[in-house]
Amino acid sequence: MQVLVLIDWQTGFRDLDYWGNRNNPDALENARRLLVGWRGWGWPVIHVRHDSETPQSRLHPDHPGNGFEERVMPQAGEAVYAKNVNSAFIGTTLEADLRMRGMTRLVLCGISTDHCVNTTTRMAGNLGFDVTLAADACYAFDRKAQDGTVIPAQTVHDVHLASLKGEFAKIRNVDDILMDMQCD
Amino acid sequence: MQVLVLIDWQTGFRDLDYWGNRNNPDALENARRLLVGWRGWGWPVIHVRHDSETPQSRLHPDHPGNGFEERVMPQAGEAVYAKNVNSAFIGTTLEADLRMRGMTRLVLCGISTDHCVNTTTRMAGNLGFDVTLAADACYAFDRKAQDGTVIPAQTVHDVHLASLKGEFAKIRNVDDILMDMQCD
Repeated sequence: MQVLVLIDWQTGFRDLDYWGNRNNPDALENARRLLVGWRGWGWPVIHVRHDSETPQSRLHPDHPGNGFEERVMPQAGEAVYAKNVNSAFIGTTLEADLRMRGMTRLVLCGISTDHCVNTTTRMAGNLGFDVTLAADACYAFDRKAQDGTVIPAQTVHDVHLASLKGEFAKIRNVDDILMDMQCD
Repeated sequence: MQVLVLIDWQTGFRDLDYWGNRNNPDALENARRLLVGWRGWGWPVIHVRHDSETPQSRLHPDHPGNGFEERVMPQAGEAVYAKNVNSAFIGTTLEADLRMRGMTRLVLCGISTDHCVNTTTRMAGNLGFDVTLAADACYAFDRKAQDGTVIPAQTVHDVHLASLKGEFAKIRNVDDILMDMQCD
């Protein structure tokens, strides 16, 4: 039994004029497929929501973009954690709740590969959880290098997965995760 | 007044046959220049040491590589924190000690840009500290992408600085930091 943690699947991230270019257009559909698998097995699902404290943010609670994507909307019985920094472990009871329930194995996915997913993955690994990151159910945005050049979202995504691999998490695709879980 | 946090300046990182190619050969010298500035001003200095739990690691306490680099060796009165995960805030009293002493502004540097420096920077920012990362007093190693291709250390370094910038920390070079501090 593993816990699926869906990070910041909020509609506010659709506004690419605000966030910039992204990679992996299939990410949400891949997250949905993970979720369908988890619900089918009756395994625990956790949804994390980013409640930005920046008034103009698309993820601020007063903005409609704070809401979850329809395809991965929380159902009754699935825990929802609100956070206002990148790590889902800071300012929440997530760590304590997982430990209390003896849950040590996590599968993570969400937005974005280099900010909230990344920070949560690093902390989960460092806190001693066994972490698998669903690579194709995450995506990143373009970032700007120190010299002002644009680093494409796919490069950001790829470099961050390479840095997380082995040190903080196993990096797998959704198909492989679902296949493994059927035998778990 | 700001706190200088030197992360994992240990001689074990010299073994590039073990770690792979790196970027920024001037990183240690730049860290030394920061340290000289801090000592001159009498500002607090914190050294973080990685005590690996992996027996074959160059950073295991039984390996001579666990020791600090001569050029940034701790002096009497400078705190040393030992950690065994990437974040210097996990398994240590660093956060509590900083808060107790009312220290809210940190300047970080060290090894490596994408692992321990990165995770410590992210947690420091998310915990509410005001963080500056000394970009040219850090370095990274080559990493392997999911498809097996090598991502050069300089790319790893640049992408991670771009992802940290603004979201978790200010990204500055040592010369600029030293110039600012003289007016602080």
